[in-house]
Amino acid sequence: MAPLADLYQLTMAYGQWRAGRHRLPAAAELFFRRAPFQGGFALVAGVAEGLRSLRAFRFSATDVAYLRSVLPTTTEDAFFDYLATLDTSEVTVSAMPEGSVVFPRVPFLQVKGPLLVVQLLETTLLCLVSYASLVATNAARFRLLAGPDMKLMEIGLRRAQGPDGALSASKYSYIGGFDFTSNILAGKLFGIPVCGTIAHSFIMSFTSLEEVEPRELSPLAGGQPVDLPALAESWLGRVCELLQTPPEKAKRGELAAFVSYAIAFPKDFQGLLDTYCVKRSGLPNFCAVALALHQLGYKAIGVRLDSGDLAQQSKEVRKVFRACGAHFQVPWFETIPIAVSNDISEQSLEEFSREGSDIDVIGVGTNLVTCPLQPSLGCVYKLVEVNSSPCLKLTEDEEKMTIPGTKTIYRLYDADGHPFMDLMALEEEPSPSVGQELVVHVLGQLGEASTVIPITVERLHQTYFRNGQVCEPLPSLLEVRNHAQVSLSQLHPAHHQLYKPQPYPVAVTEKLHRLLAELQEAT
Amino acid sequence: MAPLADLYQLTMAYGQWRAGRHRLPAAAELFFRRAPFQGGFALVAGVAEGLRSLRAFRFSATDVAYLRSVLPTTTEDAFFDYLATLDTSEVTVSAMPEGSVVFPRVPFLQVKGPLLVVQLLETTLLCLVSYASLVATNAARFRLLAGPDMKLMEIGLRRAQGPDGALSASKYSYIGGFDFTSNILAGKLFGIPVCGTIAHSFIMSFTSLEEVEPRELSPLAGGQPVDLPALAESWLGRVCELLQTPPEKAKRGELAAFVSYAIAFPKDFQGLLDTYCVKRSGLPNFCAVALALHQLGYKAIGVRLDSGDLAQQSKEVRKVFRACGAHFQVPWFETIPIAVSNDISEQSLEEFSREGSDIDVIGVGTNLVTCPLQPSLGCVYKLVEVNSSPCLKLTEDEEKMTIPGTKTIYRLYDADGHPFMDLMALEEEPSPSVGQELVVHVLGQLGEASTVIPITVERLHQTYFRNGQVCEPLPSLLEVRNHAQVSLSQLHPAHHQLYKPQPYPVAVTEKLHRLLAELQEAT
Repeated sequence: MAPLADLYQLTMAYGQWRAGRHRLPAAAELFFRRAPFQGGFALVAGVAEGLRSLRAFRFSATDVAYLRSVLPTTTEDAFFDYLATLDTSEVTVSAMPEGSVVFPRVPFLQVKGPLLVVQLLETTLLCLVSYASLVATNAARFRLLAGPDMKLMEIGLRRAQGPDGALSASKYSYIGGFDFTSNILAGKLFGIPVCGTIAHSFIMSFTSLEEVEPRELSPLAGGQPVDLPALAESWLGRVCELLQTPPEKAKRGELAAFVSYAIAFPKDFQGLLDTYCVKRSGLPNFCAVALALHQLGYKAIGVRLDSGDLAQQSKEVRKVFRACGAHFQVPWFETIPIAVSNDISEQSLEEFSREGSDIDVIGVGTNLVTCPLQPSLGCVYKLVEVNSSPCLKLTEDEEKMTIPGTKTIYRLYDADGHPFMDLMALEEEPSPSVGQELVVHVLGQLGEASTVIPITVERLHQTYFRNGQVCEPLPSLLEVRNHAQVSLSQLHPAHHQLYKPQPYPVAVTEKLHRLLAELQEAT
Repeated sequence: MAPLADLYQLTMAYGQWRAGRHRLPAAAELFFRRAPFQGGFALVAGVAEGLRSLRAFRFSATDVAYLRSVLPTTTEDAFFDYLATLDTSEVTVSAMPEGSVVFPRVPFLQVKGPLLVVQLLETTLLCLVSYASLVATNAARFRLLAGPDMKLMEIGLRRAQGPDGALSASKYSYIGGFDFTSNILAGKLFGIPVCGTIAHSFIMSFTSLEEVEPRELSPLAGGQPVDLPALAESWLGRVCELLQTPPEKAKRGELAAFVSYAIAFPKDFQGLLDTYCVKRSGLPNFCAVALALHQLGYKAIGVRLDSGDLAQQSKEVRKVFRACGAHFQVPWFETIPIAVSNDISEQSLEEFSREGSDIDVIGVGTNLVTCPLQPSLGCVYKLVEVNSSPCLKLTEDEEKMTIPGTKTIYRLYDADGHPFMDLMALEEEPSPSVGQELVVHVLGQLGEASTVIPITVERLHQTYFRNGQVCEPLPSLLEVRNHAQVSLSQLHPAHHQLYKPQPYPVAVTEKLHRLLAELQEAT
């Protein structure tokens, strides 16, 4: 595959090459200017994929032939020969570990190398890191809202930007704190736990108990097979009596679908309750089949609700499970997991908390993978140094100003173990000392110096790529997922509030501040 | 690659297989319930990609091994053997031609085949068609707002859901009416015209005219090479005098970048005007270099603005181009194309129209590819027939009700050539006759019969896939793009309004209405 690049990167590359500037040493940084979703933080993601694409960075003969056909005819032949020789063997990349919490304007990926290559990598890295970080952050917010015990399931395959968008969504939602994906390809490729329930279409494809085939199920402990449709129908009578609902309102097609599913998966039976009426059909039918299975020694594993007031219904369903459990003396019945889906958003999770619910599993699709609250993270990739001269993009908007020079990034922690400031220092500066007063200038109020005393100092970047190769073992997805939860848990609660959090201070050292002032004056 | 499927499709498939129902003949339809972006229509897209994925549909040995590891342990071995034999050789797919205008609730893709396979194709088709149709529709809306003459350029590679999301965005934006993409991979793979300008980073990488190397450019007609930096600087003096701006405010680094780019691309010189101050730096520098080039026989090809009030600035820039053209007697100067970018949305285009502008080219990234107004089309794929029995999903919400049975879809046109109704008929019904009165029931007011007389009747679906193969030549992207514009242009203006359009009526025949009523009664 050709490098992911916009055409103007190639024309500019030619401009640099033609001017003999293509091999000047350069450095670029990748960051975002505002935290997504009106929050205060994001999670770093997509780094490993970015590094892998760097390793593969190369213009093939057909790429070069294509570029020859679209670049201006005045482009010299020698440039295309040069393109064919390009690789990332002189590129060094450092980054914050995947899964780390990152704040606005803090570079979380730095690239050094020859100017031309550094510029050509811009879109590749932005494309692989931006959506990954966005959806991981979105997932982390769902996790924060849902609490640690709720099971969260990503079900966005059909809503993503095609197969790869969906795979990215599955992978990075898992990193952000989801437990499962419904996407079997993501399960196969990345080892993410997969899970699934049952759909309306399965239930609708049955109309009567006569269609159930085979009809018999042997008890778990062995013994004579039993006619499950008949057993379930007899249980339906008892359940309807207990629940005081008319048995004729329980759709027989739905009962047939449940029985058929139970015969196929006696140890993994689950039901979708809302194809018809939850209260008078889905729930009695499910209980009937689950109780019939219980009689044969099997336990049902769950139900799903996919419409209506999910919190309210979950409580009603739980009440019925309790009633059945008590009446028929089936203790496990009251703990049958209740899953919900249907356009679940952050707002839904807030409502579940506010109203109270008996929900155990939440499936999130569209609102997870398309990130409708903010469908793009808006990462930028800016040159900060060329030929040992720091670059500055001056604008009237301080927020849009770049911070010049190649830097080291530190996270400063307080005595409680909470990070309280990220600090950018010039690379040549010594590391801040633990317990010593430090003069800093906080972005947004650069004019004023302030002092801080860090109790712990963490250097945020690691060098992951050198000489064309990934030079640091990359963590597994599970390790990244754990790191994300640790990184989030360290935050002071004021900083991980999902709306209007207290802004997390990002500062520059005295020395970097002086450089900035000098450059501002010079331009 | 394993089929794109959610796990529950595999468990349900097992359920069907275990019940011996997997080979029942079945039919499913793909449609959306509401038009995206508060509009009235969408464009059909992704069909060709869907068909190609059908051709490749197969569970490989590793897929089967993976599924064996995640499906319940009670799953019979023979099922996995069966999975390994599955293909789409018994599947038939019909669809509306890619690029067609489609309305809510009208099935634009129909799948027939054995129940198990038809169900397994759900997510594959939804995943490939939904985002494609969404972004094509989004692009079409931008085109409608921009008018036919504006050049529209897709620049969303860095904002999409990874590389494939970006490629889909490029392809389907082109179908929807965009002219160019910046994505060179999309250009290479799909033959979409690519285009690009120049970035701030290129300009920022220069600080003075001394850095320009080589410095000489030969006139187009041949002759002695000229020192372009010196020539441009002399032109800068004359331009600044004309524009009455202080020459010292024109950044020499920017001038150097422009000169360097001009030497690299003398026939394709273009400038980005807002790295520093447009009025006092970018514009005078650009004019100086363009006039120097003109002196050597070359013509500049454009400028770009990337911040601030784009409509207002475009008018000021055009005024300066006119002034320079007149004063220096360079007639082509006043027509230099002006391109704009910077988070362009539908709203921006409305503002450009309202305020008036001299913009010729618009680059759209984030708001095109992520579709922030509605990042998911919400397509559904519903069983409509199993074993020759029509299926109905009844809900209290009429909008969510499915229309049962396998159908033929017609578009009815009035005497002016505008479509005025889409009509669903049962497959066995004869085609509506031109000029003859027809009794129909419009969705949303099913209770009332009404009559219409079509002047032209178009059958909307073509059979594209049969016996495991694409059986109809698929149109080229350019043909699809043209078809989309024709399809849109046929709409009555009231139906292609972008906000609160007059709802386009979708109806069922008398016979289909009777079937619906019978099924409703029976359930």
